[in-house]
Amino acid sequence: MYQRSGACESSDFDLDLDGDTLREECGVFGIFNHPDAAAITALGLHALQHRGQEAAGIVSFDGKVFHSERKLGLVGDNFSRRSVIERLVGDSAIGHVRYSTTGETILRNVQPLFAELEGGGFAAAHNGNITNGLSLRRQLISDGAIFQSTMDSEVIVHLVARSRGKLLDRFITALKQLEGAYSFVALSNKKLIGARDPLGIRPLVLGELDGRYILASETCALDIIGARFIRDIENGEVVVISSDGIESFFPFPRQPARPCVFEYIYFARPDSIVNGRDVYQTRKAMGQQLAKEAPADVDVIVPVPDSGVPAALGYAQQIGKPYELGIIRNHYVGRTFIQPTQSVRELGVRMKHSANRSVIEGKRIVLIDDSLVRGTTSIKIVRMMREAGAKEVHFRIASPPITHPDYYGIDTPNKDNLLAATHNLQEMCEFIGADSLAFLSVDGIYKSMGYEGRDPKQPQLTDHCFTGDYPTPLTDVSSLTPPHKSLLTEAN
Amino acid sequence: MYQRSGACESSDFDLDLDGDTLREECGVFGIFNHPDAAAITALGLHALQHRGQEAAGIVSFDGKVFHSERKLGLVGDNFSRRSVIERLVGDSAIGHVRYSTTGETILRNVQPLFAELEGGGFAAAHNGNITNGLSLRRQLISDGAIFQSTMDSEVIVHLVARSRGKLLDRFITALKQLEGAYSFVALSNKKLIGARDPLGIRPLVLGELDGRYILASETCALDIIGARFIRDIENGEVVVISSDGIESFFPFPRQPARPCVFEYIYFARPDSIVNGRDVYQTRKAMGQQLAKEAPADVDVIVPVPDSGVPAALGYAQQIGKPYELGIIRNHYVGRTFIQPTQSVRELGVRMKHSANRSVIEGKRIVLIDDSLVRGTTSIKIVRMMREAGAKEVHFRIASPPITHPDYYGIDTPNKDNLLAATHNLQEMCEFIGADSLAFLSVDGIYKSMGYEGRDPKQPQLTDHCFTGDYPTPLTDVSSLTPPHKSLLTEAN
Amino acid sequence: MYQRSGACESSDFDLDLDGDTLREECGVFGIFNHPDAAAITALGLHALQHRGQEAAGIVSFDGKVFHSERKLGLVGDNFSRRSVIERLVGDSAIGHVRYSTTGETILRNVQPLFAELEGGGFAAAHNGNITNGLSLRRQLISDGAIFQSTMDSEVIVHLVARSRGKLLDRFITALKQLEGAYSFVALSNKKLIGARDPLGIRPLVLGELDGRYILASETCALDIIGARFIRDIENGEVVVISSDGIESFFPFPRQPARPCVFEYIYFARPDSIVNGRDVYQTRKAMGQQLAKEAPADVDVIVPVPDSGVPAALGYAQQIGKPYELGIIRNHYVGRTFIQPTQSVRELGVRMKHSANRSVIEGKRIVLIDDSLVRGTTSIKIVRMMREAGAKEVHFRIASPPITHPDYYGIDTPNKDNLLAATHNLQEMCEFIGADSLAFLSVDGIYKSMGYEGRDPKQPQLTDHCFTGDYPTPLTDVSSLTPPHKSLLTEAN
Amino acid sequence: MYQRSGACESSDFDLDLDGDTLREECGVFGIFNHPDAAAITALGLHALQHRGQEAAGIVSFDGKVFHSERKLGLVGDNFSRRSVIERLVGDSAIGHVRYSTTGETILRNVQPLFAELEGGGFAAAHNGNITNGLSLRRQLISDGAIFQSTMDSEVIVHLVARSRGKLLDRFITALKQLEGAYSFVALSNKKLIGARDPLGIRPLVLGELDGRYILASETCALDIIGARFIRDIENGEVVVISSDGIESFFPFPRQPARPCVFEYIYFARPDSIVNGRDVYQTRKAMGQQLAKEAPADVDVIVPVPDSGVPAALGYAQQIGKPYELGIIRNHYVGRTFIQPTQSVRELGVRMKHSANRSVIEGKRIVLIDDSLVRGTTSIKIVRMMREAGAKEVHFRIASPPITHPDYYGIDTPNKDNLLAATHNLQEMCEFIGADSLAFLSVDGIYKSMGYEGRDPKQPQLTDHCFTGDYPTPLTDVSSLTPPHKSLLTEAN
Repeated sequence: MYQRSGACESSDFDLDLDGDTLREECGVFGIFNHPDAAAITALGLHALQHRGQEAAGIVSFDGKVFHSERKLGLVGDNFSRRSVIERLVGDSAIGHVRYSTTGETILRNVQPLFAELEGGGFAAAHNGNITNGLSLRRQLISDGAIFQSTMDSEVIVHLVARSRGKLLDRFITALKQLEGAYSFVALSNKKLIGARDPLGIRPLVLGELDGRYILASETCALDIIGARFIRDIENGEVVVISSDGIESFFPFPRQPARPCVFEYIYFARPDSIVNGRDVYQTRKAMGQQLAKEAPADVDVIVPVPDSGVPAALGYAQQIGKPYELGIIRNHYVGRTFIQPTQSVRELGVRMKHSANRSVIEGKRIVLIDDSLVRGTTSIKIVRMMREAGAKEVHFRIASPPITHPDYYGIDTPNKDNLLAATHNLQEMCEFIGADSLAFLSVDGIYKSMGYEGRDPKQPQLTDHCFTGDYPTPLTDVSSLTPPHKSLLTEAN
Repeated sequence: MYQRSGACESSDFDLDLDGDTLREECGVFGIFNHPDAAAITALGLHALQHRGQEAAGIVSFDGKVFHSERKLGLVGDNFSRRSVIERLVGDSAIGHVRYSTTGETILRNVQPLFAELEGGGFAAAHNGNITNGLSLRRQLISDGAIFQSTMDSEVIVHLVARSRGKLLDRFITALKQLEGAYSFVALSNKKLIGARDPLGIRPLVLGELDGRYILASETCALDIIGARFIRDIENGEVVVISSDGIESFFPFPRQPARPCVFEYIYFARPDSIVNGRDVYQTRKAMGQQLAKEAPADVDVIVPVPDSGVPAALGYAQQIGKPYELGIIRNHYVGRTFIQPTQSVRELGVRMKHSANRSVIEGKRIVLIDDSLVRGTTSIKIVRMMREAGAKEVHFRIASPPITHPDYYGIDTPNKDNLLAATHNLQEMCEFIGADSLAFLSVDGIYKSMGYEGRDPKQPQLTDHCFTGDYPTPLTDVSSLTPPHKSLLTEAN
Repeated sequence: MYQRSGACESSDFDLDLDGDTLREECGVFGIFNHPDAAAITALGLHALQHRGQEAAGIVSFDGKVFHSERKLGLVGDNFSRRSVIERLVGDSAIGHVRYSTTGETILRNVQPLFAELEGGGFAAAHNGNITNGLSLRRQLISDGAIFQSTMDSEVIVHLVARSRGKLLDRFITALKQLEGAYSFVALSNKKLIGARDPLGIRPLVLGELDGRYILASETCALDIIGARFIRDIENGEVVVISSDGIESFFPFPRQPARPCVFEYIYFARPDSIVNGRDVYQTRKAMGQQLAKEAPADVDVIVPVPDSGVPAALGYAQQIGKPYELGIIRNHYVGRTFIQPTQSVRELGVRMKHSANRSVIEGKRIVLIDDSLVRGTTSIKIVRMMREAGAKEVHFRIASPPITHPDYYGIDTPNKDNLLAATHNLQEMCEFIGADSLAFLSVDGIYKSMGYEGRDPKQPQLTDHCFTGDYPTPLTDVSSLTPPHKSLLTEAN
Repeated sequence: MYQRSGACESSDFDLDLDGDTLREECGVFGIFNHPDAAAITALGLHALQHRGQEAAGIVSFDGKVFHSERKLGLVGDNFSRRSVIERLVGDSAIGHVRYSTTGETILRNVQPLFAELEGGGFAAAHNGNITNGLSLRRQLISDGAIFQSTMDSEVIVHLVARSRGKLLDRFITALKQLEGAYSFVALSNKKLIGARDPLGIRPLVLGELDGRYILASETCALDIIGARFIRDIENGEVVVISSDGIESFFPFPRQPARPCVFEYIYFARPDSIVNGRDVYQTRKAMGQQLAKEAPADVDVIVPVPDSGVPAALGYAQQIGKPYELGIIRNHYVGRTFIQPTQSVRELGVRMKHSANRSVIEGKRIVLIDDSLVRGTTSIKIVRMMREAGAKEVHFRIASPPITHPDYYGIDTPNKDNLLAATHNLQEMCEFIGADSLAFLSVDGIYKSMGYEGRDPKQPQLTDHCFTGDYPTPLTDVSSLTPPHKSLLTEAN
């Protein structure tokens, strides 16, 4: 913890509000042999909407033909009309919600991807990032493959297409060429396939509804349709669901799982159970641990909504001070507003957040947030608290400083824009203008999850953002040429 | 409080989820003589979006010509593009956000309304409901007036158009013919006018930014733009803002105000200050009072999000039991999903809410909600809690039973569909399937707000929904003919 | 005729191509008591689409309620879907197609206009222009009327609304206050009404289908639905169609008709019969008369498509030289193309027209057009002909020089932009760059229509564009204040 | 000619109006090294719009990156906005307009197609049809290729991607595997390539503007931008345009060209010059030859607009009888109208065509059309002429009977729906209800084009629709399995 002694001027650090959160790329869903396959998939994707709001797609199979609907925008806006669902004929379906960086969200990049293979159609969708995706893409192009999108999914579909043998063998052959993090759902004319990378970095669960199997990124997608949670797909597991039931394959050497710690800190919905662990309770425990490590002598605990809420509850329960809604969030935020003059320009953070003056004025408060990325939102929130009359504004982060970018499907800024990669604790505190600042320790994260601490020999989690310990090769990153993604731009 | 002794079957009461909330019609905003009038109005309307999500409109005046943009949908989606704001030329503007019942939200019904009067243009927008609006409309039609919309605003514009004298006199002449609840903002080629009904049922505040005056439904619309709150417009007050400054008129006999209690219970944003009273603290106090009147012997306090959150915090602080997020709300809800089969049909409530099993399972819980209208959502939430393993599910409502419909701008169902109008406490408890049910008393409401209780001779609030004590005549309701609204249908 | 002797430079006269045609505002249609009222009205409007392409609207009446659909764009794009027609329930309907100047085509300005009057709903649509419309509007505003549009139709609806007595009496009372040109169709809950101005300037015909009456601007709207043409509505006639049959009223002093000559020259479809006179044969006769008055010693007759085609056929038949398609018209013209550089900027006219080189190269040609307005298109066409190798390019116009603007519903530029108002024949010829130029004489127009010539005491046609002889008062034009149209702008 | 002697009943042959025309799939355009590449391409495509109205696309290259815009709808609607053109950065561009059968016009099927190859990006667009496209597709899929569309263009891009060597060699290697008709334009990061099939079935021309080369399907696309026509690309020629200039390759054994006769009869714009032959004059000559072969003793010659106009002019000039516009065409046709009842159902043909009664009534007329496909429109037009009072209605077709379907890019119905494939002349005449019917002879076609007649040993044209003489193998047609098109459906 850094205790700030004097006033500080906020620097001219670029205030890119939109970049000041972590965003994950995608959620997946699949169901086999259910008469309402498409409608159930739409509901499942709606429950996974927090994993990607830019686009959504569903591919169904009716026994003869595959049907596809892919749309930019929310599931609830695009897949709620009867006409859309009725076009998605069939008893099996897979679906996908997508987040992506601006400019590349064109319709061609919306999953699931479909290809006609010899032997029939094949649709696939995935969550995660293939760290040798560009290298594989280059190799495939050099072998005469044609790419229509900038999605990693297309790489694996090509690898499947170029393999020989039965579909499952081809799929496994393809998986073995991949590095990185992925959870796949795929649909052929006979099978629904799920796969999770050897370390289980991204989540994938198995559920059941009316006796039919379901795959989904999180258990909340099972809950919305009243499906029963069976189990997590294991790290390195490939499951094949067909009219013969379910089969499980482990094509990789077995090793301990290392699920991504950020699912617990930020991504997963609080009511989901990820890798057998309750997300909400884990977040509360992180807040409690944070309170033990860095208690604040304050009058009120204020969560930064909505992501800081569970940790703030835990923090408040631990130190026994009142938890109050000191910041109100506006959920009707649409596109970015224009900012015609200096007087209006400063309003950015108020579009989403406003100070609830009555619980702040004249109080010593501590703000609890789940993580700190660029710090640009934090600056504005601290200032807003002071303008609302807070006597002291302390800041506590329920996770360690993010010092390294992610390459497994989380949209982090590059290292230069990670506040903790370029500032020490004191500088960070001064940057955001708080009276004090503290982070949860790395071991604190592990303790919150019931471990004694991080096992340096065999870390239990994928935690490179805090430690730099990347659990897989980063082939594309280490290749010398800059990662060119596509030669084509297309607005849509 | 009713303590339930045995199991009950939920009836076949029609489960119209969408009708199971209270919704208010509209928020208003106005600013005079500011170079960013339209952009500021858009921001102000964005902060008032909770008062109406179906449509929004802004009229600006550039010294010569009025400019209008009216759109179906959210402010953030329609008024964020620079091109739209740039078309709204001028230093003065008024704006409006609207909620309305389905089918009549066509563009012609979106406010502000504009008319060319002798002497120049006149734009007006209002929040509330004129209880003799249809009677006035019939009289005006019989006098040769032409109506283009079904909005009450058009009635007052006609009344102004047909009056004689200076604009302010004409406006006051018009106001004097109105019954019911209203807060008006109006813009002429010289003035910005605000008016609040004689009882001050609907809110309206005065603010200031860069030395220029602002009118808005709530203080949160001042906060978003960094404006200073000056004071509430008083009940029965007409304010006229012009280049000469601000003037105040009281054309009605002075009487004590009776603001609508529902602004505190449900409508206003928690960070607003309404009639000098902090909304968030009032809601917490209602929760505390509820805990005193009807404590529940439970393990966990669970708010029904988002409206039940402050009361639940107050309730939890009062009884000293943990407050936990036992229900997770999905904020990405778009249009209603289709429901192809019985198995999917039951999912309604899960679109918005899901159970957070880890804080519910095996626990005795109490659900805190702000109000109970039809009870159809409550049924589903109680059932969801039980399915998530709650040992006991108690229900507490931080307001009294709603036994009478509103006619002042709140969209309540008719009496037959108000659960408390047709069921006694025991029946309500059995209907929603809770183990016990209790409401805040009417006096409890008043106590939460610092009164000793309701003054039956001179009630301090408009509270007819709980008491049947309507504070104004209800001319349209009591007229024998059914309230025909329009002979024209038009989809848009 | 002017014979050009030397080369001339085209001036820098502003080349506003889009303004270089005459465009009429509107076509109307109505049908009473037919089970397919809305579908038939849509078809009728489609046949009248040449009278207005910017917007279309239909109002139907189902015995209880009026239904309205009003759309920007083509009839075929907006009224072809079953769902739209099905919303227009009822056995009676009126419809309208609209042309208007840019910027004011917002949805509120699309006809038919509807108003609730005492006694029931009333919808009206009209073709033409009320020359005292603004004066009436000012008077009505001063009397407290509210206007929602800038349409003249709204004036008459207000006049009806403020009259007393039975609907027909009120309608006639209203008509008597109007000056100018109009053909009305109106629909009440009992009647379909048609009316034509005292001089019959704009057309209106009566037809019959399956024993039910129809009103339409032109006979081509009867032909498309297989209806029988009964007769023209007479000048100054009001017809009332109800379940009692049809009645005819003549509320004005009887006088000879003076239909607009431009219906024959340009507006009406060639297959229509207007005021008992076949349009196609009349146009051919104008071409023949032009050939008699101004024969050209050429190899080929080339029409400027499509409007010059019938006159060119008549011209060719008269002088016995071949008629050839020397100019090809592209019918797929959408919005205006961008013009990024000088090299591309000159392409304007080629978007719509291209030279058919094989019939032009090395030939002496005469171009036949129906009229000459600004001359800006003619410049480009002449130049295009020369670039395609024409040896000589003569120009003949099958109507007299337009020296005066119209005020009866034709969108002419103001006097300064009428080429013939500011240039003599020689100057015009040099302006457009032709080798010779000639117009049909005013008497020639009358001869083409079977008269001996124009009767100066009692002209048989409304022909002020050529003669300055406006047949009605022009109250709005002669009033000193500039014709302000609206204080409100609204994009839509 | 068949002279009809008695009355005949029109059969119940299915009246599918929309299928009663010939439609070609596509036009192409390309320009190299011009600062206005995208704008010029948009204009060129606009001039080629008659070759495909369903979709259009442009790909540009800016020296580093390719940019793509592909849209459903007209060029003028989608490529006229500055913002679209400005996104298409670069000095080189290719474009495409597309016609396709309903249901498959989804955005993924819109050309040009783009792929990243080893060595850089590659975009291609083509006009025509590959008669072994499905066979090649099956082979490629079996070799692991992934297809994203149902377009033949994708086949050739795959063939290029899988070839080795320099791009040009790869492209030629790919071409050599194709059968059928094609004109290609392709754009790499260094070159603009054009190619025409060995027989030159589909057209392609070379032009020049400001010293830069242009490729286009027809000369009318050169005219619109003021470009100079250089020459036709020869049959079997591949041209390569780069910063080094233009090079020409002939990778196939040289053989005489056999251009498609339908370009002259129907497809090409009348002002185009196709294979050195003027289209308008050729059509007129066909009409003249038709008049020699099958003169009609009539009062008036009436073209079926717009395609029958030049032949009708030629016919009229030959027999010396007046040419009159007896049928008026409505150019505002949007989507198909609904047809609610029998009384309205018969109106189909009147949506597009109406009788011009004054030139038909009491007259013996001959209708001239360019071709006869299903005959369903002809039935309605003949009936319309009789209803308009024609004394006799003769029908002459300025091309021979179509007895065989096309497989080279023209959308003909299958053989069962070609009227001339299933009816003899007498039956056809009775089917359409004409008093006489005659077609131009096959030799007559050749005579109209300056030949003595068809050379049976070495036919000068591709004319299989009349003769069954298909000039290339039809591998896909003769393969036993039905031509499956795709396993995926996707609405868009």
